[in-house]
Amino acid sequence: MDVLILMGSDSDADVMSAAGAALNEFGLTWEMTVASAHRSPARVLRLIGDAHDRGVKVFIVGAGAAAHLAGVVAAHTSRPVVGVPIDATALKGVDALLSTVQMPPGVPVATVAIGKPGATNAGVLAAQMIALADPQVARRLVDYKASLEAKVEAAAARLASRKLDR
Amino acid sequence: MDVLILMGSDSDADVMSAAGAALNEFGLTWEMTVASAHRSPARVLRLIGDAHDRGVKVFIVGAGAAAHLAGVVAAHTSRPVVGVPIDATALKGVDALLSTVQMPPGVPVATVAIGKPGATNAGVLAAQMIALADPQVARRLVDYKASLEAKVEAAAARLASRKLDR
Amino acid sequence: MDVLILMGSDSDADVMSAAGAALNEFGLTWEMTVASAHRSPARVLRLIGDAHDRGVKVFIVGAGAAAHLAGVVAAHTSRPVVGVPIDATALKGVDALLSTVQMPPGVPVATVAIGKPGATNAGVLAAQMIALADPQVARRLVDYKASLEAKVEAAAARLASRKLDR
Amino acid sequence: MDVLILMGSDSDADVMSAAGAALNEFGLTWEMTVASAHRSPARVLRLIGDAHDRGVKVFIVGAGAAAHLAGVVAAHTSRPVVGVPIDATALKGVDALLSTVQMPPGVPVATVAIGKPGATNAGVLAAQMIALADPQVARRLVDYKASLEAKVEAAAARLASRKLDR
Amino acid sequence: MDVLILMGSDSDADVMSAAGAALNEFGLTWEMTVASAHRSPARVLRLIGDAHDRGVKVFIVGAGAAAHLAGVVAAHTSRPVVGVPIDATALKGVDALLSTVQMPPGVPVATVAIGKPGATNAGVLAAQMIALADPQVARRLVDYKASLEAKVEAAAARLASRKLDR
Amino acid sequence: MDVLILMGSDSDADVMSAAGAALNEFGLTWEMTVASAHRSPARVLRLIGDAHDRGVKVFIVGAGAAAHLAGVVAAHTSRPVVGVPIDATALKGVDALLSTVQMPPGVPVATVAIGKPGATNAGVLAAQMIALADPQVARRLVDYKASLEAKVEAAAARLASRKLDR
Amino acid sequence: MDVLILMGSDSDADVMSAAGAALNEFGLTWEMTVASAHRSPARVLRLIGDAHDRGVKVFIVGAGAAAHLAGVVAAHTSRPVVGVPIDATALKGVDALLSTVQMPPGVPVATVAIGKPGATNAGVLAAQMIALADPQVARRLVDYKASLEAKVEAAAARLASRKLDR
Amino acid sequence: MDVLILMGSDSDADVMSAAGAALNEFGLTWEMTVASAHRSPARVLRLIGDAHDRGVKVFIVGAGAAAHLAGVVAAHTSRPVVGVPIDATALKGVDALLSTVQMPPGVPVATVAIGKPGATNAGVLAAQMIALADPQVARRLVDYKASLEAKVEAAAARLASRKLDR
Repeated sequence: MDVLILMGSDSDADVMSAAGAALNEFGLTWEMTVASAHRSPARVLRLIGDAHDRGVKVFIVGAGAAAHLAGVVAAHTSRPVVGVPIDATALKGVDALLSTVQMPPGVPVATVAIGKPGATNAGVLAAQMIALADPQVARRLVDYKASLEAKVEAAAARLASRKLDR
Repeated sequence: MDVLILMGSDSDADVMSAAGAALNEFGLTWEMTVASAHRSPARVLRLIGDAHDRGVKVFIVGAGAAAHLAGVVAAHTSRPVVGVPIDATALKGVDALLSTVQMPPGVPVATVAIGKPGATNAGVLAAQMIALADPQVARRLVDYKASLEAKVEAAAARLASRKLDR
Repeated sequence: MDVLILMGSDSDADVMSAAGAALNEFGLTWEMTVASAHRSPARVLRLIGDAHDRGVKVFIVGAGAAAHLAGVVAAHTSRPVVGVPIDATALKGVDALLSTVQMPPGVPVATVAIGKPGATNAGVLAAQMIALADPQVARRLVDYKASLEAKVEAAAARLASRKLDR
Repeated sequence: MDVLILMGSDSDADVMSAAGAALNEFGLTWEMTVASAHRSPARVLRLIGDAHDRGVKVFIVGAGAAAHLAGVVAAHTSRPVVGVPIDATALKGVDALLSTVQMPPGVPVATVAIGKPGATNAGVLAAQMIALADPQVARRLVDYKASLEAKVEAAAARLASRKLDR
Repeated sequence: MDVLILMGSDSDADVMSAAGAALNEFGLTWEMTVASAHRSPARVLRLIGDAHDRGVKVFIVGAGAAAHLAGVVAAHTSRPVVGVPIDATALKGVDALLSTVQMPPGVPVATVAIGKPGATNAGVLAAQMIALADPQVARRLVDYKASLEAKVEAAAARLASRKLDR
Repeated sequence: MDVLILMGSDSDADVMSAAGAALNEFGLTWEMTVASAHRSPARVLRLIGDAHDRGVKVFIVGAGAAAHLAGVVAAHTSRPVVGVPIDATALKGVDALLSTVQMPPGVPVATVAIGKPGATNAGVLAAQMIALADPQVARRLVDYKASLEAKVEAAAARLASRKLDR
Repeated sequence: MDVLILMGSDSDADVMSAAGAALNEFGLTWEMTVASAHRSPARVLRLIGDAHDRGVKVFIVGAGAAAHLAGVVAAHTSRPVVGVPIDATALKGVDALLSTVQMPPGVPVATVAIGKPGATNAGVLAAQMIALADPQVARRLVDYKASLEAKVEAAAARLASRKLDR
Repeated sequence: MDVLILMGSDSDADVMSAAGAALNEFGLTWEMTVASAHRSPARVLRLIGDAHDRGVKVFIVGAGAAAHLAGVVAAHTSRPVVGVPIDATALKGVDALLSTVQMPPGVPVATVAIGKPGATNAGVLAAQMIALADPQVARRLVDYKASLEAKVEAAAARLASRKLDR
């Protein structure tokens, strides 16, 4: 398993599955499960330990509200931890963003955008990290970058053919 | 020991000592130390365990930035946890406030105001909790409330005697 | 009656009933009513007085907008007051959060998260306070913590069995 | 006495004295004192009652943090209440602004700008209200408006004569 | 006509009609129209001039976005101007609130809450101002305050009879 | 072609077509396409180069999230660049606004309001710039200003004829 | 005169003189004076009229707090108006930014960054607009862009020669 | 060279040198220079190209205001890019944080905390990434984690020996 995807609640699964979809693009293996920094701290530690045993390279962690989960994982591993703030409260993800990104010196969380765009980017970022030691993933990242450009060209073509409602 | 005061960094000590000063007003015993949810998670658990063994009734926890410490303590105890958000970053304590107050259902942190006023109130709130089982503390809280009123009267007298610069 | 639940408007009842539901888990007795710091201040004082006479241990207070109700209750009691900010305006509860948490030194309000998660936690926090003098409630809190962990395990199992839409 | 100026703490006096200075421009009488909605609620009610007895026409109320004082005054009077949010915490007056302005329907607080500019405007606004029944104050307001324009002209002249550091 | 209600766009009419409804409770006369500080500045001045000629006592002004209308009215009258910030953009009324309340010294706008609660309060506040010279309105304000309290009692009764969904 | 309208994603087309509609009012020619500062940077440079070759006078650029596109265009042209922040994330356009407006000294982006009102204004602003060298556009701007005033009068008439729901 | 620089208060002159300095780089003529949308509205109209008579091409307007001045100028001219939000209150320029940028459709203000960087950019943006009809200014803008790049190279050289304190 | 540190202005060097100091702890080689996405875009591309040629593994990029530099680098590389938002404007780094973290899907920037704590963490995060392919760095990260814990213990000892001013 290359990447373990954790989330604070199963209501985050629709957002976080975008991380898995991105990892699939690079041929990386992953598992996804639920664990709560506050409600099941022992489970979090157990999952981190298992992941270490199985050689997990990167952790991707999504959480909303007082989003401590990514920070707790980062406290217990020296592997990179990518944090996805989730818009799960009245505060629209600002709480999760600040709880995830404002980590104290020594214990980074690589924070990405709020919600689904961030979850996708968490998968891409994990691939970029893993590519440092895996030339095949590195090549796929080059292809992926080209595919982004192609998608923009396709969108431009789509727009050109649209009758815009002015 | 009635109350354990924890803080994420010794730079928080000037703020958090206001909690101790408030506890002194009610004759409560306390100790204060440093522990980091992210840099020394094992120490946090050890301190919580010791505190349980010594019969600590309430935890007061101050932290800045991605302030996870109060939440981590709350994850490992069923005693009340009072959280003091500390203004320690460019974001002026908004990060710490949201990281402390927006806890998920099941694991509350009793959050007070940012900074020194909050630390004072953390001490008062702990006394209010302990007073539920301790009539002497309850009586001191009644006296304390009267003293607040007297201080306002004194401030009013001071203002009346001042030559205001209009 | 162990806990009096107050709210500023009956439109807050759906949120605040989560506090009652949480208190039920710990076998605590409670009543819930409406009172407004601004529109019915005399009623607020009367309710506080009655609550004192009936031995209420903790007040749980929900309010939105310029949420002064918890602070007004705290001004008139030395019992712990738990404040639940409610998302009732265009500002999504930020107004209520700041009006509730930023209390001046001497008069704390134990503030929890905005909305329903906060209301649930208000009930749990009240139970944690009451447990300081009631070993049965303390035991139920230990069970409750275990149940939280079990719910996370159940969510993980549910997620594992789901066909995620990637 | 035309106007009673209240503030939550004597540390607000420098800001709030600007309200008195503005009232002086219109020949209005006023007194200024300290009272806290949270620490001395009985004193607040006593001051409102005295003010009613003495025929006070407008209340001007300054407060910082969870600024409830103006709202509490408005709950107990049908006279206009002008609220001045004060920048007294890490949140730079945002807490006081939202606590003052977001009043529920039925109990308005006429809110002005944060800090000293707001305190000046509280005095002018009180004069505008009183002028509805007092032609002399109305005339002074017309003169005041002219004086504002003259001050802008003077500032323009001052700027024209300055050697700007480019 | 006692009060002129202005708004920046006819899409604000549903919100601002709450101000008229409140004025009706106090037997005050009013008219309501549209004028834009930016798109029809001449119309704004003409309306202010007409209002002065007809003896308007108070202006109530609602506007969203960069809500300048209340400030522009205040620049051209010495009568009290009440500003209602309207939630009309992606920023949920924060833009309108700050544009309305942060007026410079000398030119106050009496700002009330964002949206409909604010519009209601604008009507009540105007009545409070007019009551300084009109004992009948003053008496109606006393009745109004009593009616607010009665409505809270009614809400409490309603809540008591409800089967809450726990 | 007078104006090139760029947007970061074709999902922005409904908002950005308002810019085209505004340009139509002034008889200006424009084209609209998609390009991403991050996903297709080469395409952005190519489009800017083509636009220069074709004598484009003004660029109008809409983008959401970390809205860098307007800034990237401004980095590569000395023609005026108008930036339209788009509400495309949980943060409601605040991210796009700050990413667009807070440009460093030397490389301005003329920023307008978030979303559709801003897109309309982008078209008007481009016309105002082009009118500096084109008297016909200048005349149309005078007519346009008159039409704004007429629309406000029409809205006022519409409001006057409406039965408001109080 | 090419550009008229207006500001709401002479305390803004240090910030706004950066706009003049930038205009100097492009050989443009300008004057700078004080006028307040709220305290001297007649003066504002007079200055706009004079500017039109003298052929002013662009207005640059700086204001803080409820920054209405740029919007008021835009309401009375069809020439481009560049707005500079100024950090003049406890809210650090957020109030001025939103009051300046969130203009309604039809009346744009070309908004730049808060404070001095924004004032510099206001000058550059005005030059970019004027360059649409003035090839000499257009050439100077090309030189200016090159000078920016040279300054970055110089900063890089400076940094390379510095002994950084690690 | 393992890591290239870029910053938008040499005024960011004091903050960003903390990233270099952190990299030193792990025996990693780095260079640091200035480049501006807006003022010197060609230089940015040249530096990225050189870095690729020299086998740079990770980019660390600090920028303030409309902080586009990290995003521009990420647009041109498939190597991981770590973004450090810098508090360089009146908005205290909120602008830089949102401009850095809210990247669109496909082009991640691994964002860390605002300012110096973030710069330190950028270095640690880069080391964690590089450790995926370098066991020696991985071992140093384990030692580093232990040293963080030791520093907390030392801070606790320091606090225990301090005479706190209560």
